[in-house]
Amino acid sequence: MSKIKYELLHVDKYSKARRGRIHTPHGIIETPVFMPVGTNSTVKGLTNDQIKNIDSEIILSNAFHLFLRPGMEIMKDFEGIHNFMNWNKPLLTDSGGFQVFSLKDRKISEEGVLFRSPLDGSKIMMTPEKSMEIQQTIGSDIAMAFDECVNAKWGYEYMKDSVDRTYRWAKRSFEAHKKENQSLFGIVQGGLFSDLRQRSLEQITSIPFDGFALGGLAVGEKYQESEKVLKEFGDKLPKDKPRYIMGIGSPTMMFLSVENGMDMFDCVLPTRMGRHGTALTWNGKLNLKSAKNKFDHSPIENDCNCYACKNHTRGYINHLLKRDEMLGKTLISIHNLYFNIHLIHKMREAIENDSFLDFKKEFFSNSSYPLQN
Amino acid sequence: MSKIKYELLHVDKYSKARRGRIHTPHGIIETPVFMPVGTNSTVKGLTNDQIKNIDSEIILSNAFHLFLRPGMEIMKDFEGIHNFMNWNKPLLTDSGGFQVFSLKDRKISEEGVLFRSPLDGSKIMMTPEKSMEIQQTIGSDIAMAFDECVNAKWGYEYMKDSVDRTYRWAKRSFEAHKKENQSLFGIVQGGLFSDLRQRSLEQITSIPFDGFALGGLAVGEKYQESEKVLKEFGDKLPKDKPRYIMGIGSPTMMFLSVENGMDMFDCVLPTRMGRHGTALTWNGKLNLKSAKNKFDHSPIENDCNCYACKNHTRGYINHLLKRDEMLGKTLISIHNLYFNIHLIHKMREAIENDSFLDFKKEFFSNSSYPLQN
Repeated sequence: MSKIKYELLHVDKYSKARRGRIHTPHGIIETPVFMPVGTNSTVKGLTNDQIKNIDSEIILSNAFHLFLRPGMEIMKDFEGIHNFMNWNKPLLTDSGGFQVFSLKDRKISEEGVLFRSPLDGSKIMMTPEKSMEIQQTIGSDIAMAFDECVNAKWGYEYMKDSVDRTYRWAKRSFEAHKKENQSLFGIVQGGLFSDLRQRSLEQITSIPFDGFALGGLAVGEKYQESEKVLKEFGDKLPKDKPRYIMGIGSPTMMFLSVENGMDMFDCVLPTRMGRHGTALTWNGKLNLKSAKNKFDHSPIENDCNCYACKNHTRGYINHLLKRDEMLGKTLISIHNLYFNIHLIHKMREAIENDSFLDFKKEFFSNSSYPLQN
Repeated sequence: MSKIKYELLHVDKYSKARRGRIHTPHGIIETPVFMPVGTNSTVKGLTNDQIKNIDSEIILSNAFHLFLRPGMEIMKDFEGIHNFMNWNKPLLTDSGGFQVFSLKDRKISEEGVLFRSPLDGSKIMMTPEKSMEIQQTIGSDIAMAFDECVNAKWGYEYMKDSVDRTYRWAKRSFEAHKKENQSLFGIVQGGLFSDLRQRSLEQITSIPFDGFALGGLAVGEKYQESEKVLKEFGDKLPKDKPRYIMGIGSPTMMFLSVENGMDMFDCVLPTRMGRHGTALTWNGKLNLKSAKNKFDHSPIENDCNCYACKNHTRGYINHLLKRDEMLGKTLISIHNLYFNIHLIHKMREAIENDSFLDFKKEFFSNSSYPLQN
């Protein structure tokens, strides 16, 4: 099999939540799915065995970061990221659109984005064609089209031009993409403007991509704003292709996204919070740096089957964090990724039983996570 | 069984190298043995599973550091370090002698050492009785007597007084130690002065400790100086008890120590070098930060069975180090500890076959480690 194949298994009776399955060159992904982020071809602090032990089905890496380091010469020499990092399961790369637009001192033209390398200041031109070349070299199972990720503050007129440019770049991405055993997803932009989202959705879905993403969310907007976009457009994405919302990873946003028909999510939140000493639990967030954990003999979470909870106490982890020991960061990162992945597993079960909304209600009534944030 | 029991299995025909076995409350240690250091009740960067997977039979922790943090209130509450860090195999604590004497602003008296806490500047009095109390609370399988670790530059007269004080402290340590399921080792001092080493050896071995250590070496002296002490005194330590030389972990010093009848070693070198990007191999040291590894598809070491070598290339590890990713440090630390532990395994085999000196010759002719350093 060369491209991914999506099966829609079931839609929840009382919401738009979908239960699906994606077949990829490196194995099957059940959906909805949370994808741990391995920016530099490593999920921070975890070995591949530890990633597999938390039942991760797919990880995400960043074309932009890998382009800078280790660089494409090395990626070619190793024949792609799977060999390079010895990861034999599915992997998705994002196109660099988001990263490039986070840089200061960039210049956008019809051709692409000119920016200075954060490494050595040299000028680099990133184009849809270049991004496809990079992602094909990296050899991810799923590549993303090169888009313009826009700050909503730049206003309607800019966003309208940008949406049209993202469409032209999407067509160029699609045309430049040749790799047989790699799929390509298009990205719908349009910020918080309904008509521009609609315009972008029509444009992007007119191209026969293998899947579609909502981009330009989770960039600092209010909950109500992303909710509005998701409610209006989540289920307008093609039903027969995977639907990916980029940069989403909090329980609140994952529930909102699944409820509105999205299938795939990625976020650095579980590992970043882990490195900073905060655990995600079924009751809410837990600050393990707090002195109240010092004498606590219980695991981060009772009944959790992750390595950290099966082996270590809050008191021990509190001590590790105070001494800034790597193991503390690793243990909480393992737990947090396990939590996100297994929360999604529970969502899958609920969808299969047409009880997604009940499960959501139960989850928020038993935890301190905000239903809206 | 409450105390350790030592069995001398075999002595090499052509050297003083010994093959032995120590029975402890938490299992058997074959000797000679290298003990990974877990200063803060964690071997830096490794999970307990990873420590066990490199075939570590015993780890070392530091009474002084644990006394400061997490502190004895927590250690009591968790009923000792085995529970606290969930380590169910043998563990040795050093007494704090070395750490206390590394501090500036300390005052030595007959009673003990008065120093300021590096945490909050408060005054702390460390005595033999206090060190025993701390180590009994920690609950290590093997505790060490509280000694004075002296800078050789302080001269003969100071060293002579110190040797006698260390003897009085050793007697006080022995008298204060009451814990049934914990053994206590004495420490021979005397610096580089033969007559004072002899004096200390006679004094310390007159006390019925469960084992004996050579202290005050590996503190910056020349190879020839430590060689002289080891050749003269290594095999003078009682034959029916384990012999431990503190702070030793380089191949050069481990060979020298085993050849002269020592059984146990500890050193932060493998993990510290690992965190700084240097691997220990059978050919010599390997700087994995060096650009020449960028395109190298081979593991750190061919034929090595550690997790790092079984799964990853030098090129990938080089990339991880450049990005300062935790995984790079963890992988090399795993390899380096595996190397030290399995080098000792090979020494054991050689002793059993009366070929220790041949093995030593072969090792140094095939590697760039200095025979003397």
